[in-house]
Amino acid sequence: MVFSVNEDYALWLDEQDELAHFRERFVIDDPELIYLDGNSLGRLPIATRARLQQVVDYEWGQRLIRSWNEGWIEAAVRVGGKIAGLIGAWPDEVIVADSTSINLFRLALATVQSQTSRHKIVSDNLNFPSDLYILQGVCQVAGRGHRLHVVESVDGIHGPIEQLADAIDDNTALVALSHTVFKSGYTYDMAAVTELAHRAGAMIIWDLSHAAGSVPVDLNAAHADLAVGCSYKYLNGGPGSPAFLYVRRDWQEKLGNPIAGWMGQAEPFAFGLEYEPAPGLRRFLTGTPTILGLSAIEPGVEMLLQAGMERVRAKSVRQSEYMISLWQALLQPLGFTLNSPRDAARRGSHVSLGHAEGYRIDRALIEEMKVLPDFRQPNNIRFGIAPLYNSFAEIHAAVVRLHTVVAEQLYEKYSPESLTVT
Amino acid sequence: MVFSVNEDYALWLDEQDELAHFRERFVIDDPELIYLDGNSLGRLPIATRARLQQVVDYEWGQRLIRSWNEGWIEAAVRVGGKIAGLIGAWPDEVIVADSTSINLFRLALATVQSQTSRHKIVSDNLNFPSDLYILQGVCQVAGRGHRLHVVESVDGIHGPIEQLADAIDDNTALVALSHTVFKSGYTYDMAAVTELAHRAGAMIIWDLSHAAGSVPVDLNAAHADLAVGCSYKYLNGGPGSPAFLYVRRDWQEKLGNPIAGWMGQAEPFAFGLEYEPAPGLRRFLTGTPTILGLSAIEPGVEMLLQAGMERVRAKSVRQSEYMISLWQALLQPLGFTLNSPRDAARRGSHVSLGHAEGYRIDRALIEEMKVLPDFRQPNNIRFGIAPLYNSFAEIHAAVVRLHTVVAEQLYEKYSPESLTVT
Repeated sequence: MVFSVNEDYALWLDEQDELAHFRERFVIDDPELIYLDGNSLGRLPIATRARLQQVVDYEWGQRLIRSWNEGWIEAAVRVGGKIAGLIGAWPDEVIVADSTSINLFRLALATVQSQTSRHKIVSDNLNFPSDLYILQGVCQVAGRGHRLHVVESVDGIHGPIEQLADAIDDNTALVALSHTVFKSGYTYDMAAVTELAHRAGAMIIWDLSHAAGSVPVDLNAAHADLAVGCSYKYLNGGPGSPAFLYVRRDWQEKLGNPIAGWMGQAEPFAFGLEYEPAPGLRRFLTGTPTILGLSAIEPGVEMLLQAGMERVRAKSVRQSEYMISLWQALLQPLGFTLNSPRDAARRGSHVSLGHAEGYRIDRALIEEMKVLPDFRQPNNIRFGIAPLYNSFAEIHAAVVRLHTVVAEQLYEKYSPESLTVT
Repeated sequence: MVFSVNEDYALWLDEQDELAHFRERFVIDDPELIYLDGNSLGRLPIATRARLQQVVDYEWGQRLIRSWNEGWIEAAVRVGGKIAGLIGAWPDEVIVADSTSINLFRLALATVQSQTSRHKIVSDNLNFPSDLYILQGVCQVAGRGHRLHVVESVDGIHGPIEQLADAIDDNTALVALSHTVFKSGYTYDMAAVTELAHRAGAMIIWDLSHAAGSVPVDLNAAHADLAVGCSYKYLNGGPGSPAFLYVRRDWQEKLGNPIAGWMGQAEPFAFGLEYEPAPGLRRFLTGTPTILGLSAIEPGVEMLLQAGMERVRAKSVRQSEYMISLWQALLQPLGFTLNSPRDAARRGSHVSLGHAEGYRIDRALIEEMKVLPDFRQPNNIRFGIAPLYNSFAEIHAAVVRLHTVVAEQLYEKYSPESLTVT
């Protein structure tokens, strides 16, 4: 069958899809709702619902404090070890802790503290703003003339590789980038940029929030130093579920945790008054881990491991390419621009479409069409594609409904005032 | 009725207890189990189970990303405002965020950064070790000759007031103490010690982890500057539930958050590249809040507000005094020491008993007697009393079983090797 804008073609693609059955493993109460925001908050896996019931009713309700000895105390390490399998790391290189921002703070500060003769952190303006705030804060705290250098993307879509190469010099302690960036979905060549940093003697930290569970990440093959990421997007860990951090084996004993707390202490239950860092990765923990959040991550991660990141990525590319073909046929004539890279190799699992009336169109899609994408300033509608539960038919329907919203000017009754959370 | 070691007296005390009915609002599957570890992990409120089901099944499962606009984004402020009612603060002075250790780090570092001519942090050796690790870390990060001065308690039980008064001087930026300390349960006179700090021009931060929900705390009356605390003990928020922080109104705009993230940004969803702190308390947030953990806190806090802290405290004192009377009659002759203050006014809601065979006795209590206290090095068995669900009959039975363990030497088969989490 050759590409067609008809629904039949979408249904045929779904028939060929070897991952289609994973959709049945998610809670989907309303089949009419087209959810394309899994890059912001992933759907609820059915197994997670059961797991949380077990944690609340049995582990907390009945076993009470004994549960710390019966699995909780190892949960951060255990779940981290499973996430490692999705991002090309050894199990003892990934641990679950706190939020992405806090993990970035602790690792960036540790790095800057360990490289006293270098005073620059390099990032780009495609990075998630919270990462830039954190890095500005790290420079202030480090406070010996440290500064953040933010390289600018030429088109606001593609990563500024050449400008990065110029900016990374022998005064650069750390390069900090999002692997897949939050607006356009541009995805860096991790190995190439890591090598750029290393050639200048700098370390690199990758934010994998939009990459983990959506694009192939091989931290070890790239020889990446550090990474952080969240678990509530493609890992389907639930709202505000705790983040993860990666520290390459050979750095673990060389870096300290500036937020040194008891969970990172060599013997937390000896209650010694002097801090002694735990061997290995556990030193990067601080306080008591949030068990509800941690427990909710595991089933989603296990599902991705079962599906296999190669198959997930292959489907993601097929789906994104399909969506872009539909954009070209149906939406480009209505004034939509493609605000994501055209090259699949440089694109994550979301497609951003721009339109002068982007915000109002987004509102109309949500309110009138039961399509849930999200909106990012100034004019991007982001369509997150989660191959484990999104079908080709959903992508087709979303584009058709988007076409209707604009062709029939259904967005006109919505205020252009853009105050939204999603 | 006058005090007697007989069970009848305990049952009579339960009959007089106006808070007794609150016990029915907790999940208690095994009435034989005597749980006296609510100062480590509080029991599961029945309302929390229902609330979590709502959050998982409906808010996450069905409403998905829309739930951020339907309550999640305000949850940290809303739940914080309720906790404020338990600790003598205005609703806009308390917010839920991260872990106690991370909150201590951010507020202690902010304080030290704002007082550039002072280089000392004063604490005591009764403080929770994680707090001391964090403060050591803050001194290292601040790094201009900053140091932590740890004042020593004379007997390991009572707070060293005089030594603190000597240590707090015009080089002291911050005094950091646990209001109720974790081992002995000693409780500082918050107003008096806050005044000590202020008289020397220092700020003070109180760790309320063992105090919130158990002793009367009036931060405003004491004119306390800052506070942090956890929600999984007497607030019954669940394993590793997120912590809270308090910043007095007049400090909120003067202090920055060194871990500056997007949730503390004035307009997080404008995605500006420059950090601009939100007005008021919200600036002390960093990353995306953990919604499961946050939601689990609220019903337990509401229950304490309904019971009223005065009544909770009155019962806690009656129960602790009762336990100490039983200790005197039945346990002191068997070699148990009271490792908590005898003066109820200086004691929180747990009673620590020492014994040369403390660890093995603790094991035997758990394994043979269905009594769950916890153990703290070197020889303390801590009995946490949670007035909302512990009865006088439970306290009586726990002491009788403890007596049996020692009188019949049931602990002898347990290894003295003390590797335990609880």
